Amino acid sequence: MSFLKDSRGKARKVIFFGDSITQAGAQFGGYISLMKDMLAKQDIPDYDLVGAGIGGNKVYDLYLRMSEDVIAQSPDIVVIWIGVNDVWHKSTYGTGTDADKFEKFYRAIIKQLQAKNIKVMLVTPAVIGEKNDYSNQQDGDLNKYSQIIRNIAKDSDLPLCDLHSLFHLYEVNNNPANADKGILTIDGVHLNQTGNRFVAEEMWKVLKEVR
Amino acid sequence: MSFLKDSRGKARKVIFFGDSITQAGAQFGGYISLMKDMLAKQDIPDYDLVGAGIGGNKVYDLYLRMSEDVIAQSPDIVVIWIGVNDVWHKSTYGTGTDADKFEKFYRAIIKQLQAKNIKVMLVTPAVIGEKNDYSNQQDGDLNKYSQIIRNIAKDSDLPLCDLHSLFHLYEVNNNPANADKGILTIDGVHLNQTGNRFVAEEMWKVLKEVR
Amino acid sequence: MSFLKDSRGKARKVIFFGDSITQAGAQFGGYISLMKDMLAKQDIPDYDLVGAGIGGNKVYDLYLRMSEDVIAQSPDIVVIWIGVNDVWHKSTYGTGTDADKFEKFYRAIIKQLQAKNIKVMLVTPAVIGEKNDYSNQQDGDLNKYSQIIRNIAKDSDLPLCDLHSLFHLYEVNNNPANADKGILTIDGVHLNQTGNRFVAEEMWKVLKEVR
Amino acid sequence: MSFLKDSRGKARKVIFFGDSITQAGAQFGGYISLMKDMLAKQDIPDYDLVGAGIGGNKVYDLYLRMSEDVIAQSPDIVVIWIGVNDVWHKSTYGTGTDADKFEKFYRAIIKQLQAKNIKVMLVTPAVIGEKNDYSNQQDGDLNKYSQIIRNIAKDSDLPLCDLHSLFHLYEVNNNPANADKGILTIDGVHLNQTGNRFVAEEMWKVLKEVR
Repeated sequence: MSFLKDSRGKARKVIFFGDSITQAGAQFGGYISLMKDMLAKQDIPDYDLVGAGIGGNKVYDLYLRMSEDVIAQSPDIVVIWIGVNDVWHKSTYGTGTDADKFEKFYRAIIKQLQAKNIKVMLVTPAVIGEKNDYSNQQDGDLNKYSQIIRNIAKDSDLPLCDLHSLFHLYEVNNNPANADKGILTIDGVHLNQTGNRFVAEEMWKVLKEVR
Repeated sequence: MSFLKDSRGKARKVIFFGDSITQAGAQFGGYISLMKDMLAKQDIPDYDLVGAGIGGNKVYDLYLRMSEDVIAQSPDIVVIWIGVNDVWHKSTYGTGTDADKFEKFYRAIIKQLQAKNIKVMLVTPAVIGEKNDYSNQQDGDLNKYSQIIRNIAKDSDLPLCDLHSLFHLYEVNNNPANADKGILTIDGVHLNQTGNRFVAEEMWKVLKEVR
Repeated sequence: MSFLKDSRGKARKVIFFGDSITQAGAQFGGYISLMKDMLAKQDIPDYDLVGAGIGGNKVYDLYLRMSEDVIAQSPDIVVIWIGVNDVWHKSTYGTGTDADKFEKFYRAIIKQLQAKNIKVMLVTPAVIGEKNDYSNQQDGDLNKYSQIIRNIAKDSDLPLCDLHSLFHLYEVNNNPANADKGILTIDGVHLNQTGNRFVAEEMWKVLKEVR
Repeated sequence: MSFLKDSRGKARKVIFFGDSITQAGAQFGGYISLMKDMLAKQDIPDYDLVGAGIGGNKVYDLYLRMSEDVIAQSPDIVVIWIGVNDVWHKSTYGTGTDADKFEKFYRAIIKQLQAKNIKVMLVTPAVIGEKNDYSNQQDGDLNKYSQIIRNIAKDSDLPLCDLHSLFHLYEVNNNPANADKGILTIDGVHLNQTGNRFVAEEMWKVLKEVR
């Protein structure tokens, strides 16, 4: 019996809970699909990876659909990856999420999942624009919301995949022309092939340690 | 024994649940205070009127603090008056509330209150600007959100004080210079003396019928 | 000699100066093309109708490109139709135009055109959403900016085609289901076939009187 | 005769052209007043420093009032310090300035001043929030607009006081608690005593070299 199996000897069900990036992640070539391939190649049969992303979702959308889309599916682990739209919709619709409300709903989601004995893993939002010198319009705000998630991870002792930092580091090393898209994303937000592979690898590094 | 008393023979506790307008409403000269005076003058001792307004609140703020600030206080009736900031914060902070989320949270609040056998009375947002020819910046959006509340009242068979319509009618009749403030409000949003009296009277007309 | 010809006996050159609606207006089936057809059918050869619309333009875009795109083309008449993006971009990009600056640039355009002896005709913005009960999100603001243009027309004694009022009236009479698009527009903003014909007819009523 | 005097042997008139920061800069304790004191103490009588700042101004406000407030005053040098509101008003009013229009108006101002043989000195916007880790909401956008100004300075060969970089460096070295205000500003934007002195010194370093 593998150490990765849960106490019931079954594969552990992991739900990726997020926005359009996660919605695309469950499709062919997406980061969830790639992670499945990775695990298959490494002969790790113990995970059942499930996408639960919906385009345009913000933290309170996750909150509102959590019971039906997540808890009712009885996952062992939930990976929460949200925040891009909470920031982006401020300028595109005027309906972004206040920083303090973002934190309240984020913590409320964690609380309800943990009350059901579901393990939670946090992920910071990656990028809105790939420029590596902090000159993408939302860089300041995205840093701020990432910091909120890092603080929650720290004070709640939860595993964190800090994609915001990892993407920035990658851009510094691999985006010499300071392009605003085309390195890890198609359009500055949604992952291209390289981006999906990068996310699959980085998320797995953290996910495999979740016990 | 008055017909207005609840089944336990006590005064009925009414919580006014809202934003800064309701926060001010509980202070001296505010609409809740004026309603108390009105009831005292009319020898109606059967209501305990309580303000629960917090400045800047949007519908999801009410949702987040409902358990503590409302349900834990065991009211008989809750008057929900919210929506101005859900619209206004779109342009002042970029953090207004999407129309569909506004409705979801609004209905979620009602559902939880009703599950505790609390009566609910709805109120549409009054004004952001007092011009009477639909040329205040947020008039279109405020109409839209008021319509959402009217629809909820209708399909949930709930009592409604449609202040949005009542204010508009008042402005048409009493604001010949088409001023954007100073008729029922100090600043286009917050009630002046006339506005507080007007709201006290209009709300009472509906509230007294809530059984 | 036709009364419609200018003092030099040539066709009068009319430039339609605007945004994406005017850009589309110069294409096949667009309102400018339809107006040309109308004039041809009525044997009115005296006008040379030219489109100068660029998608996304706001009043200050017109200002910035006026010398090159309009004055350098030596028109006899300029029809200014702008304002939708000045309002709309507030919520879609955060870069709408303040009302007082809208007026300043609008008047500055008129002043420079008149200094070149060019006749100016004004047009109010039509719609952002076709609902007829003032519940489209930007209705309040669009009313306000239309009023600014009406005031300019009045105090500068300039011909005005008040499409904002005309569209509203049309919607009240022809949009019984209160749809937000599909009556005069494709998407709430850009004209469909009926809309292009309506605009061609309404603009011509005013244009033909410009001497 | 001092080398600092202009060809006519008079003091050189310097107009500081900007927003509320410059409006306050001309008052007691403001950066312009402090610069005057500095020059007086160093026995440099050759400059006539004049404030022309108006609260809330964006680049196109400067453009609109340039003839009256600047050119009509016959300055020898104009210091342009603008940009904070072009970025900030995106989220506070929905009426910020598009990046490409910001550049167009900025260059149009320079062109008209140079056409009058007025020397121009450029200044990048300082801060909106003093956090030093690029987590102030507008940091990304402010970096972007500062870069536009740096590019203009470079390709037009104009003197530049890069306050955006200088403030960041100062914050890194002097804001160990990563406070969002209180180091160089009162409120994250408007200068406190230390900030006014810092700006006076840094601007003078560049201004004294303008020939």
